[in-house]
This record gives sequence, structure tokens and C-alpha cells, in this order.
Amino acid sequence: MKRVALSISALLCTVFIFCSYGFVGVEGYIKKYNTGSRIIDGKLNVHLVAHSHDDVGWLKTIDQYYVGSNNSIQGACVENTLDSVVMALRRDPNRKFIFAEMAFFSRWWEEQNPEIQEEVKKLVDSGQLEFVNGGWCMHDEATTHYIDMIDQTTLGHQMIKNQFNKTPRAGWQIDPFGHSAVQAYLLGSELGFDSIHFARIDYQDRAKRKGDKSLEVIWQGSRTFGPSSQIFANAFPVHYSPPDGFHFEVNDFFDPVQDNPLLFDFNVDNRVNDFIAAAMIQANVTRTNHIMWTMGDDFQYQYAESWFKQMDKLIHYVNKDGRVNALYSTPSLYTDAKHATNESWPLKIDDYFPYADSANAYWTGYYTSRPAFKRYIRLLSGYYLAARQLEFLMGRRTIITNTDGLGDALGIAQHHDAVTGTAKQHTTNDYAKRLAIGASEAETVTNSAFSCLVGSKLNGQCASSAIAFNQCQLLNISYCPPTEEDIPQGKSLVVVAYNPLGWNRTDVIRIPVNDHDLVVKDSTGKVIESQFVEVDNVTSNVRKVYVEAYIGISAGNAPKYWLLFPVSVPPLGLNTYFISKASQKGNRRKSYVSTVDLLKNETVEIGPGNLKLSFSSASGQLNRMFNSKTGIDIPVQQSYLWYASSQGDADPQCSGAYIFRPQGLPSIVSRSVPLKIIRGPLVDEVHQQFSSWIYQIGPIPTDDGIGKEVITRITANMVTDKVFFTDSNARDFIKRVRDHRDDWPLTVTQPVAGNYYPINLGIFMEDKKSEFSVLVDRATGGSSINDGEIELMLHRRMINDDSRGVGEPLDESVCVENKCEGLTVRGNYYMSINELGTGARWRRTAGQEIYSPLLLAFSHENSENWKSSHLTMATAMDTNYSLPLNVALITLQELDDENVLLRLAHLYEAGEDPEYSTLAKVELKKMFAGKTIKTFKETSLSANQEKSEMKRMSWKVEGENKNENAPIRGGPVDISSLIVELGPMEIRTFFLRF
Amino acid sequence: MKRVALSISALLCTVFIFCSYGFVGVEGYIKKYNTGSRIIDGKLNVHLVAHSHDDVGWLKTIDQYYVGSNNSIQGACVENTLDSVVMALRRDPNRKFIFAEMAFFSRWWEEQNPEIQEEVKKLVDSGQLEFVNGGWCMHDEATTHYIDMIDQTTLGHQMIKNQFNKTPRAGWQIDPFGHSAVQAYLLGSELGFDSIHFARIDYQDRAKRKGDKSLEVIWQGSRTFGPSSQIFANAFPVHYSPPDGFHFEVNDFFDPVQDNPLLFDFNVDNRVNDFIAAAMIQANVTRTNHIMWTMGDDFQYQYAESWFKQMDKLIHYVNKDGRVNALYSTPSLYTDAKHATNESWPLKIDDYFPYADSANAYWTGYYTSRPAFKRYIRLLSGYYLAARQLEFLMGRRTIITNTDGLGDALGIAQHHDAVTGTAKQHTTNDYAKRLAIGASEAETVTNSAFSCLVGSKLNGQCASSAIAFNQCQLLNISYCPPTEEDIPQGKSLVVVAYNPLGWNRTDVIRIPVNDHDLVVKDSTGKVIESQFVEVDNVTSNVRKVYVEAYIGISAGNAPKYWLLFPVSVPPLGLNTYFISKASQKGNRRKSYVSTVDLLKNETVEIGPGNLKLSFSSASGQLNRMFNSKTGIDIPVQQSYLWYASSQGDADPQCSGAYIFRPQGLPSIVSRSVPLKIIRGPLVDEVHQQFSSWIYQIGPIPTDDGIGKEVITRITANMVTDKVFFTDSNARDFIKRVRDHRDDWPLTVTQPVAGNYYPINLGIFMEDKKSEFSVLVDRATGGSSINDGEIELMLHRRMINDDSRGVGEPLDESVCVENKCEGLTVRGNYYMSINELGTGARWRRTAGQEIYSPLLLAFSHENSENWKSSHLTMATAMDTNYSLPLNVALITLQELDDENVLLRLAHLYEAGEDPEYSTLAKVELKKMFAGKTIKTFKETSLSANQEKSEMKRMSWKVEGENKNENAPIRGGPVDISSLIVELGPMEIRTFFLRF
Repeated sequence: MKRVALSISALLCTVFIFCSYGFVGVEGYIKKYNTGSRIIDGKLNVHLVAHSHDDVGWLKTIDQYYVGSNNSIQGACVENTLDSVVMALRRDPNRKFIFAEMAFFSRWWEEQNPEIQEEVKKLVDSGQLEFVNGGWCMHDEATTHYIDMIDQTTLGHQMIKNQFNKTPRAGWQIDPFGHSAVQAYLLGSELGFDSIHFARIDYQDRAKRKGDKSLEVIWQGSRTFGPSSQIFANAFPVHYSPPDGFHFEVNDFFDPVQDNPLLFDFNVDNRVNDFIAAAMIQANVTRTNHIMWTMGDDFQYQYAESWFKQMDKLIHYVNKDGRVNALYSTPSLYTDAKHATNESWPLKIDDYFPYADSANAYWTGYYTSRPAFKRYIRLLSGYYLAARQLEFLMGRRTIITNTDGLGDALGIAQHHDAVTGTAKQHTTNDYAKRLAIGASEAETVTNSAFSCLVGSKLNGQCASSAIAFNQCQLLNISYCPPTEEDIPQGKSLVVVAYNPLGWNRTDVIRIPVNDHDLVVKDSTGKVIESQFVEVDNVTSNVRKVYVEAYIGISAGNAPKYWLLFPVSVPPLGLNTYFISKASQKGNRRKSYVSTVDLLKNETVEIGPGNLKLSFSSASGQLNRMFNSKTGIDIPVQQSYLWYASSQGDADPQCSGAYIFRPQGLPSIVSRSVPLKIIRGPLVDEVHQQFSSWIYQIGPIPTDDGIGKEVITRITANMVTDKVFFTDSNARDFIKRVRDHRDDWPLTVTQPVAGNYYPINLGIFMEDKKSEFSVLVDRATGGSSINDGEIELMLHRRMINDDSRGVGEPLDESVCVENKCEGLTVRGNYYMSINELGTGARWRRTAGQEIYSPLLLAFSHENSENWKSSHLTMATAMDTNYSLPLNVALITLQELDDENVLLRLAHLYEAGEDPEYSTLAKVELKKMFAGKTIKTFKETSLSANQEKSEMKRMSWKVEGENKNENAPIRGGPVDISSLIVELGPMEIRTFFLRF
Repeated sequence: MKRVALSISALLCTVFIFCSYGFVGVEGYIKKYNTGSRIIDGKLNVHLVAHSHDDVGWLKTIDQYYVGSNNSIQGACVENTLDSVVMALRRDPNRKFIFAEMAFFSRWWEEQNPEIQEEVKKLVDSGQLEFVNGGWCMHDEATTHYIDMIDQTTLGHQMIKNQFNKTPRAGWQIDPFGHSAVQAYLLGSELGFDSIHFARIDYQDRAKRKGDKSLEVIWQGSRTFGPSSQIFANAFPVHYSPPDGFHFEVNDFFDPVQDNPLLFDFNVDNRVNDFIAAAMIQANVTRTNHIMWTMGDDFQYQYAESWFKQMDKLIHYVNKDGRVNALYSTPSLYTDAKHATNESWPLKIDDYFPYADSANAYWTGYYTSRPAFKRYIRLLSGYYLAARQLEFLMGRRTIITNTDGLGDALGIAQHHDAVTGTAKQHTTNDYAKRLAIGASEAETVTNSAFSCLVGSKLNGQCASSAIAFNQCQLLNISYCPPTEEDIPQGKSLVVVAYNPLGWNRTDVIRIPVNDHDLVVKDSTGKVIESQFVEVDNVTSNVRKVYVEAYIGISAGNAPKYWLLFPVSVPPLGLNTYFISKASQKGNRRKSYVSTVDLLKNETVEIGPGNLKLSFSSASGQLNRMFNSKTGIDIPVQQSYLWYASSQGDADPQCSGAYIFRPQGLPSIVSRSVPLKIIRGPLVDEVHQQFSSWIYQIGPIPTDDGIGKEVITRITANMVTDKVFFTDSNARDFIKRVRDHRDDWPLTVTQPVAGNYYPINLGIFMEDKKSEFSVLVDRATGGSSINDGEIELMLHRRMINDDSRGVGEPLDESVCVENKCEGLTVRGNYYMSINELGTGARWRRTAGQEIYSPLLLAFSHENSENWKSSHLTMATAMDTNYSLPLNVALITLQELDDENVLLRLAHLYEAGEDPEYSTLAKVELKKMFAGKTIKTFKETSLSANQEKSEMKRMSWKVEGENKNENAPIRGGPVDISSLIVELGPMEIRTFFLRF
């Protein structure tokens, strides 16, 4: 309650100041209109929140939106918005405006001269210009990884903090297509936001909430944190535009307030009545006497005065009328006003997925749209994390380039029309270009870091080194020149593997080679077991087309083999492996060329470890998974199917980039598929070509005029009772019940699309004995349409647009010399069966390994020479230390000001695992062995305020049990021991200086 | 040459000031771009002239354009333009903008607070904001009367003079559809303009002028004034928009200059090259190294910064490049630069009519479009002149209302999409509404004036008077309640006739009455001859429909008779007539009911005076005109015909509001028509109904799917050798030669439409003996398509739009209670035959009487009572004085500051009449008998500078004979005698104070 008192006294002060100015504004501009109204308690207060929703790329690229080019696609120029808003705000100190997307604002800011910057700082200081959200973009909430959400938010918040010393208070996720639990608690409450505002919730949900005035809720997104993670959440009754008739963009069709009696069409009374009528409609579905009007829309305020001129007049005349009170406001002022009412609010838990805007329009297609792009983002997300570690380890200021370009590109890519796959193709190409440039810069950083680190003691200073490293961005399609080339006698292919995880890991790595006469040695010179697997034709063909498509040159002949060998790398450390000709003197051969099964038996079992898969030799179908150690044994089938994309019927809604609308039941690709089993000491492989286009997925044929949405379906013999679990932004798992919503009695209109949920980490189901889990390597959509079933959507290609603005069918293609074909996508999903209650360990650990793969760099050198002059195995940590298995290092980044940003994340939810869902401890001194931490400061999630200074609003919640157990959270960090405790799901952020 | 030196020194000074500021502009805004370039002699100078062409009504009404409503028709808000231009100009003192339409500017100006007004005054003072044209609107040049052109220009110029003490230097007639001689010399040179700029000239003319670099000329519009009326005229090579790709309206499709290398799509070099390429194209058709880019278009600069931002960058980078020199400029700076080059220019005489933009697109339809509206404007123009006289005579400040509203409405109506008939119907309705309101206010003024004047000595003070006068705006359709009502015994219908002309006039007036038992007496009580003519059925029917359409009430029964009687009224004076029951005691009947001819003879002659018409009794056709006094006798036929409006063919061009494109030859309405001859002592009348819709004209039938353009054709037996004469804005007569242009070898593509010319006063032709003249009562189009023929277009109705933007077919209708029919038009044209060389007298005098009819007001009173207490006959002049017959009083108006504006116009061209084309003298002391002229000042035409201070540029003209005789002009006015001399065509303007 202290906060309320504070804001009221601040208010009085403000009013006083304005009163003393009378009607005189800045610049000596005398206003004709009294716009200085503040909240009036006994009246309906209409908060006019002026905003422009500026997509960080969609129909146009971000740069085109910024400079206003390509206006034939969309008339939009963010530079105009910011220029003209600043001018408009300066004309009247009562006017307010909010801005969200810092990727745009930072471009503009850098182009302004110091005078304008000074003026803008004043506007920010006075609250006329308020940053909301404040991330680099307004990120998507369905297909984003929580680490990316944090990174992009931090990027924006740091800019705001550094330039304006401000901390955004309001989440402003007005456009994303559904809203996640992680957004609510982690990117909301834990970030320090008091409120979050958005427009898009399910149409049935909205109807119900309008009926019982529950659009505004207290949202508790985390089961682990419970009431301590609450946030005030405001779902708009219609959309993020103003009520009809109050949309005032230059050249728009509206009825301007015409108060000059000397001209015709004087309409003040009519406009005031219209205003009040619209306000009453909204008041009727809203608790308290405060309603918010979102005075803006996509790329509005091209000429801000056009809006403010009308709003000035409306405020003046509506308040003169006196029936309601209109005022310039912002989401934070609105939230303060709501809070001050002491009203009770409904509780909302979990999330707002899936989102439908009408019966056949479930926005669940975008969970999967553009799977290659989604994978590229996820891949680079992990890479960015590793690259920043290496940048830190090397010292940020030692090289010319840095990882900022990749951070910027990834920040942009989290936008709700980027990673979602819902931007136009040319814009998507622009995102990919930015990512590629960023990745290339980051690769320079990591190569330099490798070069520096292996030429030094890891714990000591970086030493210059002449070693040139290469990395292979196209390793997944078997293209890697340094490994493909012949290894001369006396030289070795040197493979340095870097492990960005906080714990030691073993893995099998695979690189393309042209020779099976090779041996692999570890850093001690010991030959280690390796396995050769022939590169299949499908991979060769993909390589041929895609290498040329990506890098513009012919890839040459495909390599003959994949060389597989096991590696072991310490936490935050590296290890080196040497590959040389087997025939070379002194080499003891320990490498095996894989064999191909003859399939004599009816069923065939594969898998080198405990987990086995059993296939039918006749049909080729998977029929059983079992774990020889735990005894879990489940009959399982897997198949590939495709939904025909709806092209509309009585309801013209098509399936498209946003919307998944299948036409009927899915078709199975093949009931019987050839089975090729490849065996070896390290891995067994099953190669199955379900059709000419299901091996990798694509090109999806559309010659038949039918869009196709390809899924894989895994059917296990489990009684799951409609229940399955999907993650929220790869963080919390949320229970899903088929054909059911907790918040309203669902009318099932789309039995498939309406049960799809976004998946970033994985999906699992359980019965009384077992858990069946599938993890993914990118964002995708999935569901459990029947008990015991899990389906994942893998790829989508269609021929219609779904009428949500993008104006293109989702029909990705790849072209080489003007010859185009449908885009091919490859990927991995990871399945596990576990005893009930033990699946989390696999999901959490494997999930972290999938997100943060080993980073490989290649060079060629005589192995003895190398070993004599280079570090071959090292860790940044104390050699005996690693992070506990329930803690991940999610950020380690040196900033420009020598501050180092450290984020540690507990990986388990409360109750998820008996052993790991507990308080974990990280010893920073051991983590940063050999370095001395000079200063240490714990901050909010986006590092824009000290943790100790964070304020939290408390809200009255209907029927809430305030006696719930407090969540486990780590205590304050003792500055001498520097041991960080983390409770389940806790993420702690620190600024360190060494 | 003095002027040039002056402007160069001013320039140096300016440069110095800007240098001392460096890059710092106003408001502490530091510019990134060097926009301060001035003319560089050795380079091609590209003058960027920022403008917005703001139609004073067209697709939307003037108010809708101003406030930005009705944007679904056209996104346009002049308030935005002016707001944002002022803001943009304040950001950089090098930026410049020109503005033309004071009807808009004055609305905006009145809404600004004193601070903004002060800022704008600074912008005007510094030349950043320059008024061009500066009239109330950008008037049309084809269908406007020169008095209206002067009035509307004066309205704007007075506003500019009073608020800014500025005198516009440039004519900016960029959009009107062809250009008149009167515009060039009278509204150009005589107004004080140095230059005139426009976009629309004939496409063949333009092509030829581009070829020989003669787009820019010295235009000498007056044969009378010769070289003393020259003006620099700049016809644009394309249009009044910028070169392709340099159109920078907010949300437009253009390639913005992108100079931030951190963003993609950096394009400075490309844009600079584009700029230079476009400049070179224009340089190749332009003399000197100065070219003008018109940086604007219709209703642009909604957000001015969008334009200036791009122009700033272009000026900066183009000048950095250095190949050409780009600068912010204005038409006057451009003209100064042209003048400074000392280049010789081609001479252009006469005018730029007709205008065609392609082979089948002659803009000669609008000469006639909306004839009823055109007549309403002309009617009110004359009324406005008379009303201002009465306002002055009464004393402007003695009543609440004044004639300003009518002046404003008439000013707006001169706009080139108003009187032209090319606005949308709803906009035309708005113009008519404004005119009606203005007329009603002026009627209040004139009624008050009558009331005051007749209740006083005319030369003395206005006395209050209780007499209520009525006027009859619908007299033309026989609706006049005060004359229709029964006259009780003992009362008279009192008719006061006011004569706004400067000389005594006699006329026959006609009023509708219901009784033929009436006598008319003059002010001395003498019964005068009168004649009754039965009201015909067609008139009754028009009255029935149109009275209800206009005033919303049923008109009741039509009156039975027109009562005609002759009146005689002194100059600037009034006379009173009394109509009472004939049966009343003491009345001597002298009234006659007309008789109808029995048509016994083969031909029948009519006409009470010297001029006779002879008709064939059989066919009803006119067959001869002769003057019994002069002996001129010419066989003449008259017929009505209609052209089918083209609906497009291989060329899809349709006939429409702008364009006259007939489909083939005209069809004759009727070869044989009934003839009804009505005779009486005062007038003979011929009533002929050519068809159900040619009597009055209309409703033109379009049920057959064919638009029709109705003409009357008069065929005289004269050898005219392709030559005929039409007036320029009712002032000068210009010789026209069929199928010929003086300026280029005409390719005849439209033998009818391409020979049409605008007519405001009249058209005549001559042979070796005679002149045949036709005068009109409104603007119309006409021609002489065959020798001896004159045709006038009377009315147009069509079913297609002509694709010039208005987006509506010209299909006027009138509705009563939702029942609509095509608009009916009535009117008069006046024919005369004269001996060669004597027609001008008739045309000039009759023309003036047509323009300024007697103003009639009605009351009811006992005539003896009236005479005892009221003035019945009076003149403002010395009773023995009247203006010479070659001089008209075209303005007599009291202004708010007690100044009285007086304009006298010589009515004859040099050589037009042996007697009247001579120096005339006006004795002001006699003209204003009983008043004392205290101060006296001669001014420019628009009264915005003293005549003595006017500067005139002199230009080098190719092949000009500088020894031409100087025109006759009146000398300076001796302040004691106050005798004003006027040479032929001279108009002199004075400010007087009494």
C-alpha cells in the first residue's frame, strides 16, 4: 500500500506543476485544449494509451520499416513515428506515448543529435515517453526459448538503463498469438513488471471473460513459485486498436472532432456522445472504473499530431461534458490506478494457449511454420551462448569483432512474426541474412578464442596463436571441407570440442570423411574407438543442392563416410582429438566400418545401450521400445502422416502460416517401409525412407493442389486419459487435457488443431508405470490426439494464405540457378521411456545437451607438434568442480563496461524430481577458478535494477489461499563465500567484475 | 537590372548569416545535412519548390479538406499540411515552402494561438514560407468573370497584406485547365506579379515547346497594353508533381535516401545519380541553367517532415557530389534567377485555350458543365457588386451582417473545380449552399440598405426605417410571393429598382402577378404603359418542381401573368414604381394583355424596336434578322441539336465533366417547330417548344443510354473565313481561327471539341459588312464549326466519367421527396447584328447590363403614404452626372478599416470602337456627390501595394520590336480635381476615405 500512497502524492505534485503552468506548454506553445486531466475517483476513467505497434519485421524487413522503404507493401516508417511523436510530445506536456521495440528505438536514437537526445531524455524522465516491454522486439511466446526471451529482453533493457536510467514496469505483449506461462512469471513478474497487457486470447475464453468481467486477472504462471510470481494481466476486450471511429492515423477515415463553428459539420456533441457510448460498452465488461483505450495500431503515428490533435480535443470536450473522465495515460499509470482500487481479481494459472480467433481459426500452425528457420534460430541460440562464454574467456576487448551482431540478429529473430514463421518470405530471408552475418562474426570470435585459449593456459592469459580454426556450419548436411579433405602423412585433423555446459559431458560426434583408413586419438595419444557409417544417397543429394544454395558454390563430391567417435569434454572446457591415417606408422587401428543387418528374424532390436527399439522386419515398422535396465517395455508404433491443408469450405478459412486447419483426418505416408539397420560399436542406425519425400522431410509435393502438413505420430500402448504435458518456452511443463480448458467449457470445433500446443523442449505422457517423452531440436507444434499417442508436426507447405495479413501462402522453396524446389527439412527428435517419476532427469539433462551441443573446431597439424605447444584439454572451472546437474549456466557474457553478466538457472520445477527439485548450490569461486571476483551484484532478470531494489505489487485475488507454502528460493549470497543457492526453477542474475 | 543587383546583395547577406550559424538551426536543433546551398552560377541549379496543391473543394468540400473528414474519398487534411509544414520549417531555416490558397490558410490562421502566429510571421518574413498566387482560391481561367477573379484575388491579398504585410510576387496557376490572356496581363502583370507558373498546356503545344526550349516564355496577354503587360510564364515540362521517384508523401512508395551504413540498403549513390539523371532530362528542355522541381502534389505534406527529410538529404548529397546544385527555392527566387541570366525568351501572345492532354481529350466540356451552377455564380457575382455598393451607401457598420459571407462563397466558387462544374455533386451542393447563405446575408444587407436609403435622403445619412422589403431570388421561375399576392384596395405593390451601373438605364422588368386588372405608376404618380403575358405551362411546371426543390415548400398555384413595364433608373440610384388595382378609383388603365398572332402570312416578323426577327410560319424556323435602321439584313437559321457523348472506343476516353468528346455529328432536335408569337406594346415574344425537353433545356433524356450535350446553332449567311471572336474572362476579345493555332501546326483530332473556346461575355463573327454577336448570361462553351455559324453549348448530361479524377458522370438531377429528374436549365442569350465596326458598343453596354441587372425589392404600402415619407427616386451621384459609357464601376466596397475600395474599368480595347476606345475621365467628386473624399490612394489591382511602389521586371524577348507604341493609360490623379483618366482596357484601383 505504500506504493499507492507514493503515486498519489506524486500525482498531486504533478497536478500542481501543471496548474502553475496553466495552459502554457513547452516551447511557449499555448494550448487551446485542457489535456491535463488526471484520475478522478468517482468517475469512469478512460485511460488513453497512445502507442504504435511496430513489428520488428513482418511484411517488410526491419530496415524497410525503419526507413520507410518498400511502402507499396505497407505504408510504414518507424523513423516518422519516432520523429513525429517526439515533436508532438514536446507540444504539450500532458501528452503521453509508449514505445516497446528497442530494436527500432536504438536505431533511431543513434541517429539523433545531442539536442534531440536531451529532449527525449526529458520526455522519458517526465513520463511522457514510457518504454513498455522494452525488449529488442515484442517476442513471440509460443516458439521462443526462454533463454532467447531473456537475452532479447536484456538487450533492450540494458539500452534503456544505460541511456535513460529507467526500468520498464509494464509488459506489453499486445500482438503475440497466445501467451505463455513463462512470459507471465519469468519475463513478467521475475523481470520486475507489475503488469502485462495483451490482445489475443481465445475467442471463447474472451467471450466468457467479458461476461463475468474477468478479462483482467492476476496471473500466476508458475506452479513452482505460486503466488510469489503473480502479475496483473490485462486482456483487451477487442484488440489493440481503439474503439471504432477513434482511429486517427493521418489519412485514415475518421470523423475528426470539428469544433470550429465557422466551418460546416460542427460535431463536438456527437463525438463526445460517441466517446461515452464506446466507453460504456467497455466499462460494462471491466472491473473498477478504469478502462484502457489502446490508441494506436500497427505502424501508426506516422504523423503523431494527427492522433494527438484528436485526443486533445476529445479529452477537453469529454471532460467538459463531465459524464466520464478521459486522460492521457500509460500501462503503468493504469496499473497503479487499478491497484489503488483495492479490487479483487480472478486468478489465472498456466497459459493462454492455444489461441483461436474463431471456430476454425486455431493459430497453431505457426508453432511449426518454417521449421528450418526455427532450427536455425535455435542452433544459433545455443551457439550464441557458447560464443559469449568463449568471448568472456578470451577477453572481449582483445579482438575487433564481437558477438553483439549475433545478439542483435537473434533479438530480432524472437519477434512474433520472425521465429513464428509468419513473416513474408523476403523478410524471413532478411532475418536469416542477419543471423548468418551474426553467426559469421561470432564464428570469428570463437575461432579467435579457440586459437587464443589452446595457445595458453586456459586459466591464465590469452596468448596469441597462429592456429587457424575452421568450423562447419553445414555439418548437418555432411559438408565440412576441413574434415573431408585428405589428411597428409605426418599431419592430423585436429578436432577441438568445446563444452558450454557446466558439467562434464560425453558424446559421440560425427564428421564427414572420405576415407575409412583413419584412427582417432585422444589428447593423451590414446587411440579411441570409432565407427564409419556410409553417407546415404539422400544426404548426398541434399548436400549437393543445399551447399550451393547456401554458399553459392558447388560442394563437389559427397564424402563417403560419417566418422563417429566418442568424446569427453570438461565443463566450460575443451578437449582435443586427433584423426590421422590408420596406415600411418605407430597407429593401432580401433575403427570399425558399420555393418548392415540382413534382417533374418521377424523382429530386430537395435540400440547399443539400455534403451532398445524393436522393429518388424516385414513391415519395417517400429513396434516396441524397452529399457533393459528399468524393465520398462512399451509397444510403440511410429508413422508419418500428413494433413491436407484446408482451402476453406463454408467457412473460407484456409490453413496457412498462422493457422492450422486440417481438412479431415491425416493420410499415412506408408504402412510398410524398407528397413535398413546399420550397426556398429558406437551407434546403431535405422534408415527408413517412408516415401520419396519422407526421409528428410521435403520437398513436400503440392503438385496435386493440396497443401500438406506433415506429422510424425508415435503410438504407445499407454492409458493416458487425455492428459499430456508440453513445455512452456522450454522451461516449465504444463499439463494439457485433450478437448478441455480449465478456464471455460470448451466447445470443440477443431479436434486436432484445437489440441495443438507449442513445444520447445519436449512433450511427454505418462501412465501409471511409465513416462514416454519426446524432445525436439527446435520449436514445433504437437499434441496427443488419442490416448497413448504423441504427434509432432514436422513441416508444412501450402498453397493458400490464411488471411491474417502476411498475404503469402507458406510455400518455402530453395533455389539454385533459378531452379527451385520445395524446402527440405532435416532434424532430430529424441525419445525416451522412463519409469514414472524419473523422466524429468532425462528431459532436463538431454534437453540442455540438445540446446548446447559441443562446439567443434577443426585444424590440421602434426599431433605431436600440437600437443607440445598447445593446451589439449582444459576447463575454466576448478578441475574438480562442475555445476550441479540441476543447474545450468545460461548466460556468461562480458559487457562493454567490463561487467560480466552471469545467469544461473535451476532446471527443475518443484516436485519434478525427488533428488533434483531441491535447493542447489553453485560455488562461484570454483566456477571461475583462477579469476578473482572483485565486485558482485545481484540484479533483476534483465539486469536493469538491483535485486534488492525491486518492488512488487501485491494484489487481492478472489478465493486465494494466502497460506500456501512459500517456494524454495536461494538466500542472499554471502559475499565472502560467493555460494549461490537456487531453488527449483529459480534463475538468478548477477553482475560480476573480475 | 537594379533589382538583380539588389537580390544578389541580399543573397550574400543571407549566406553570411547562415555561415555564422554553421549547422545550427532554430530551436537548437543541430542539422546533420547541409541544406544551405544557394544559386551557383556555373552549375545546373535545381530549384526545389515545396508545395501542396490544395483544391478549394473538389472530391470533398472545402471544410472536409480542411479538417480531414471524409477521408474515404480522399486522404486529405489541409490543417495537417499547415501544422506540419510550420513545424518542419522551424527545424531548418533553409527549408522553404510556398502556399497558394488563402481560403484554407485563413481558416488555419484564425485557429492558431498568438505564439504560433508569431512564429509563422517570422517564417513569412524570412521567406521560408512564401505566399504564391495568394487569392482565396486558385481560380479557373476559362469560366470565370474577370470581376470575380479580381474580387477573389483581392480577398486573399488583403488578408496577406493585413496579417503579414507581404505582396505575392508569383502567379501559381498550376492546375487550371488552360490559361487565359486576362490571367496573364490583368491577374498577372497588372496585379504586380513577376511570373506565372502552370502545368497544363496542350499536349501538342508542350511537345513542340520542349523541342525548342520554349516552355518558358514572355507572355503578353493584352493586345491593348502590348509589351507593358509582359510576364514571365513557366509551363512545366510534365506536371506539378516531382520527377518520378522523388515524391515523398508519408506512406508513399518511394526509395528513401538511406545513408545509414549500419542498416541494409544504403543507396546514397543511387539516389544522387537518379537525381542528376532527372535533372538532366529537364535541363535538356529548359533555357538557362536553372530548372524548377515542383516538390509536391495534391494535398501533400500531410506530414511535411516526410518530404523535407528526403529533400534535406538530397540537397546535402547531391551538392556533395557536385555535378549539379540543388537548393530550396520558390517561384520568385527562381524567377529572379532566370531574370539574372539575361537570357532572351520567346514571346507568347493571347492565351492557352483550348487545353487537350491527348488526341481525344479536349478539356472543353467544363466550359459548359453545370450551367445552372455557372449561372448562379454569375447572378450572385452581379448581386455581390450591387450589394457592396448598397452596403457602402448605407454604411457598412450600421448593420450586423455584411456581404463578406457572399464574398467568401464567391471566392471559393471561382476555384478551378468549382465554377468549372468539375467537382463531385456533394461538393457542388456545398458550394451552392455557401452561395445561398452568402446571398441570404447579402439580401439582408440590401434590404436594410433599401429600407435605410428610401427612408432618408440618399446623399445624406441613413435613417432607420421600418419598411420591410422582399426580394425574389426565384423570379426567373415566376416565383415571387410579394408580387403574386393580391393587392388590397388602398395599397400598392411598391417596386424599388436599384441600378448598380454608373449610367442611367431603362429596362423592361417583368414580375409574376395573378391579376391583369393592374396599373403601374411611376414615382411621380404617372400611369405607365404595361403589358401582361400569360405564364406558359412549361414555366408553371418548372416553378412547381423547383420551388419545392429549392425552398422545401409547395409553391402553390402558378401566377397567371407576367406583368411587364418599362423602368428608368439613375446611375447608382433607385426609382420606385407602384402597382395597384386598375379598378381602383382614379386609375387610368394603360395596361395591355398580349395578343397571340394568327400566323396568316408565310413569314412573320417580330420585335418592337429596330431589330427584327423573321420566322417561317410553316416550319416555325427563324429565317432572317434585320435592323430596320442600319439596313443590316442577314438570313439566319437557328436550331437546337445534341452531340452524343462519347463512351469511348479504341480510345476509351469518354465525354465527361472536363472533357467534351462528341460521338460523331450532332443530331437535330426538330426541323419543324410550332411557332407561337405573342405581341404587345412593350415586347414581342416567340415561344417555341423544340421538343419536350428543349424549351427550357432539360431534363435531358438519357434513358437511351446516351449522354447528350445540347447546343444551339445559329447559321447566318456570312462569309467568315474560319474566323470568330470569343472573350477572355468577359474582358478582351480574342480572334479564333478554326482548326488553327498560332503557336504550332495543329493536328486536328477533334474537329468540334478542339475548336471550342470558353465564353463568358460573348462570341461574334463578322464579314465585310456586318457583325453577328451573341452574348451569354453565364460561362459556356462555344465555337464556329462552319463559316457563318455560331454554336453555344447549353447543357450537358452524361452517363460516364471522363477519368480525370472526379469519379462521377456529370449527371445532374433535382429531387423532390426522393423523386428525381434530370436538371432543367433556363437561360438567355442575346443576339445582335450590327454594321461592321459597331458591334462593340452593343456588346460592351449590353454585356454590362446583363452582368449587372436591376436589383428589385418589393413592399406593400399605400402609394401616397409611401411617397410622403420616402425617397422614391435618387442617385448617389451628382444628379447631372453619370459615368462615361466606356467606363464601368466594377468595385465600390467599404472595408472594415473604413477604407473604401473603388475600381473603375475602361470597357473597350484599343481600336475596338472609334469613339469609345479612347481616354475616358471619371470625376470622383461628382460620382460621390454629397460626400467628401478625405484620402485618396491608387493601388495595385488587388490593393495590396501602392501603385507608385510597384516594380516591374523587364525581360529580353526574342525578335521584339521595342518601338511599339506605348498604350494609352490614364495619368496620375490630381488630388484636387480628383479626375481619374482611363485608357482602353485600363482598370484603376483606389483606396478612398470619406
